[in-house]
Amino acid sequence: MPYFDAASSAPLHPVAREALLASLDEGWADPARLYREGRRARLLLDAAREAAAEAVGCRPDELVFTPSGTQAVHSGIFGTLAARRRVGRQLLHSAVEHSSVLHAAEAHEAAGGTVTEIAVDRTGRVTAGDVAAALRPDTALVCLQSANHEVGTEQPVEEVAELCQEAGVPLLVDAAQSLPWGPAPGAWSVMTASSHKWGGPPGVGLLAVRKGTRFSPQGPRDERESGRSPGFQDLPAIVAAAASLRALRAAAGTGPDEAARLRRLVDLIRIRVPELVPDVEVVGAPVHRLPHLVTFSCLYVDGEALLHELDRLGFSVSSGSSCTSSTLTPSHVLRAMGVLSEGNVRISLPYGTPETDVDRFLEVLPEAVRSVRDRLGVPTAAAPDPAGAGVEETGGDETGAEESGAEESGLVLDTLGKRCPIPVIELAKVIDEVPVGDTVTVLSDDEAARQDIPAWCTMRDQEFVGERSAPGGTAYVVRRRA
Amino acid sequence: MPYFDAASSAPLHPVAREALLASLDEGWADPARLYREGRRARLLLDAAREAAAEAVGCRPDELVFTPSGTQAVHSGIFGTLAARRRVGRQLLHSAVEHSSVLHAAEAHEAAGGTVTEIAVDRTGRVTAGDVAAALRPDTALVCLQSANHEVGTEQPVEEVAELCQEAGVPLLVDAAQSLPWGPAPGAWSVMTASSHKWGGPPGVGLLAVRKGTRFSPQGPRDERESGRSPGFQDLPAIVAAAASLRALRAAAGTGPDEAARLRRLVDLIRIRVPELVPDVEVVGAPVHRLPHLVTFSCLYVDGEALLHELDRLGFSVSSGSSCTSSTLTPSHVLRAMGVLSEGNVRISLPYGTPETDVDRFLEVLPEAVRSVRDRLGVPTAAAPDPAGAGVEETGGDETGAEESGAEESGLVLDTLGKRCPIPVIELAKVIDEVPVGDTVTVLSDDEAARQDIPAWCTMRDQEFVGERSAPGGTAYVVRRRA
Repeated sequence: MPYFDAASSAPLHPVAREALLASLDEGWADPARLYREGRRARLLLDAAREAAAEAVGCRPDELVFTPSGTQAVHSGIFGTLAARRRVGRQLLHSAVEHSSVLHAAEAHEAAGGTVTEIAVDRTGRVTAGDVAAALRPDTALVCLQSANHEVGTEQPVEEVAELCQEAGVPLLVDAAQSLPWGPAPGAWSVMTASSHKWGGPPGVGLLAVRKGTRFSPQGPRDERESGRSPGFQDLPAIVAAAASLRALRAAAGTGPDEAARLRRLVDLIRIRVPELVPDVEVVGAPVHRLPHLVTFSCLYVDGEALLHELDRLGFSVSSGSSCTSSTLTPSHVLRAMGVLSEGNVRISLPYGTPETDVDRFLEVLPEAVRSVRDRLGVPTAAAPDPAGAGVEETGGDETGAEESGAEESGLVLDTLGKRCPIPVIELAKVIDEVPVGDTVTVLSDDEAARQDIPAWCTMRDQEFVGERSAPGGTAYVVRRRA
Repeated sequence: MPYFDAASSAPLHPVAREALLASLDEGWADPARLYREGRRARLLLDAAREAAAEAVGCRPDELVFTPSGTQAVHSGIFGTLAARRRVGRQLLHSAVEHSSVLHAAEAHEAAGGTVTEIAVDRTGRVTAGDVAAALRPDTALVCLQSANHEVGTEQPVEEVAELCQEAGVPLLVDAAQSLPWGPAPGAWSVMTASSHKWGGPPGVGLLAVRKGTRFSPQGPRDERESGRSPGFQDLPAIVAAAASLRALRAAAGTGPDEAARLRRLVDLIRIRVPELVPDVEVVGAPVHRLPHLVTFSCLYVDGEALLHELDRLGFSVSSGSSCTSSTLTPSHVLRAMGVLSEGNVRISLPYGTPETDVDRFLEVLPEAVRSVRDRLGVPTAAAPDPAGAGVEETGGDETGAEESGAEESGLVLDTLGKRCPIPVIELAKVIDEVPVGDTVTVLSDDEAARQDIPAWCTMRDQEFVGERSAPGGTAYVVRRRA
């Protein structure tokens, strides 16, 4: 049963399992105690710290273990912000950071700090220039992920680290998604990661703070982990996390190149899906990306229904569509990229995924999408158009979201109360009836429409005129081009 | 090799080990996901929550899993204080709470809150009357452990819960030490516990918040665990924690009474140690106490040296003596009780400890203490005096620490620069030279002397006149009685 959601949580690596078992018998005592069980636990902890530090590319005394990647991010952000308080309280982060960064930023803002979000292009990438432009004398911290967890796009971490260093501003790199494939590049100040993303057990995050970075741990003091992560260490999990990370590095250095192999499988998905399925947008950077992750969105598809269909067929994938989130809003990553969110599918291949699993996925996907579309009563799909489906690595098309001052006329489609992908489907159904050069107005109260109607226009080469508030929701105006 | 430090961390229970292994294969996926691996993880998580809630005595939706007992305490305290902010900001706690409570209280005070410590008697117990007297209209929260982690004394949790309920003030019960033996009694509002104390794996704490208790989680928001504990759940550890707690309860309900068996072993230690070793004080409540824990202190003994000696002999125990702490201050628990801190040994028997281990401990202890005393050049010890060594359950002798206005005369012992137990040893060496009714003044800059000189006076039936600051340290004045 193919599991294609390694970016959420990877199955336990065999080395992690083995190390966990071994350390259950040796690693349950308190490493702060002086008796033999404590000394044995301390040795295990020290060895795990050394192994993990080597894989991270830092000194052992710069690295602490936290109970999760989320807590590493929270501690890393608040510890740095507090130490920089006299400099200022501006926190800069990209618009596509993990929710743990966004939620820490919200808390910072609620406590009187300021937060500036750095926009990304249509591939999900910030530019170093935009980061440089956002730096201010009161900038306390910049947060930039090494690679995006939803679309796989790598960020220009090295360049940003360099300009941060020049400006004397610390850079926190959330390396949760990339650490399985190699250390985060560049002269970062703080780095965070999460064990269960690389096949280690859950319950272990990494927080590295480079010497020379001012850092004031927040919250109640605690003696463990240099005062940076309170609570009794989960030593068996820590040992297993470190052992599996070291095993990944060793395999990458000596064995067949697993990253390259997965990259070929992902390339296959990137090329074949738009050929096999009509009206698909593959999102994320085509070149500068994680080896194992690919995301695409299918027009006129209900993401939740597609996930269920794929699950029924034996494939576990995730989605950033609004209907798969508890808040009924599309993924903030897809929103920041300005790309289609409906029918969204993220594939992230675990280490060792057999090629046959990917082949079979490509076999079943077209029928899965078709069956969801059929149930929704989608207009006959246009022929697959692979040329129009990809995105450019650079450039970042502007979504035509500027407000139009002109009065629009013509057809009004009331889709109030209807959820994604219905508003877009209704629009697609009527567009042929609209005279060329005339407009159609879609009324919708669905959060996904704000993103998906402009995205549809881009994909279908129609003009998105703009949006304005309307009774009960928002009016989205589209002009028929051809 | 007998391990007698279950109160720090208990060896993994066989059921925990088994459940951990089983859930490694089923429990690595994200329980928030909709595909089969996620659903399977969710089922495991729900079952673990139900089992743990039953053992705790609360509803499953009142219980969340945290990464440690420490984090459960921190979240429990700050979540309750924040929700009660409009009522007031006074936090009440006993003087003998776990450091996680004390550190949270410090942080609360640093943030502008007020903290009131409730004193304990010589057995380490608060009285409900003292708690009632400390309640104020602005009291936001009362924290009281179910039983003390260093001396085993049980607190009057039921009584205090009742009076808190009458006053409309929430009570947080830290049940870390007692939960292995049964649910915390009384109508508490918030309860915390820690898995590795009952033989579950590290990495799991419990936080229960009873319905009707106002609670506002602090820190960045997070969707997991009802927003009360951020970060990806360590599901294999959670499953193992719940399974082992359930196994303990089942064994207690049907099998031989392990608590009663350990209590008998502890009683043996309580009785035999003062018979076998001269100048010992057994501390903590003799009746209302944890079944598996006993603490005693040995006059004229360096705690660290005794720990090393016992470790060499194969026994792992802990100590609250100043020389075994990184800060060179005695345990705050022993200090609050006003009992001797030098040569302190805590024994906490893990589940299943064989009686022969205890017998052998009693065999080797006298020689271990003697060898440490010999190395320190201790005056010939008095005959063992078991009658004088115990403490009363009630009453709480006052330590004679009041300041004396009268000028003292006589001998001055300069022990500046010398650490515990040297000042007390020097005092014992000279006391016979002091005329009855006359005083001897001990100059010391050792933090432990503040506690151990009065405790020595109580044990030796000498009068502690008082202390005053002196150049380079403190002058402790003792009057010879007989």
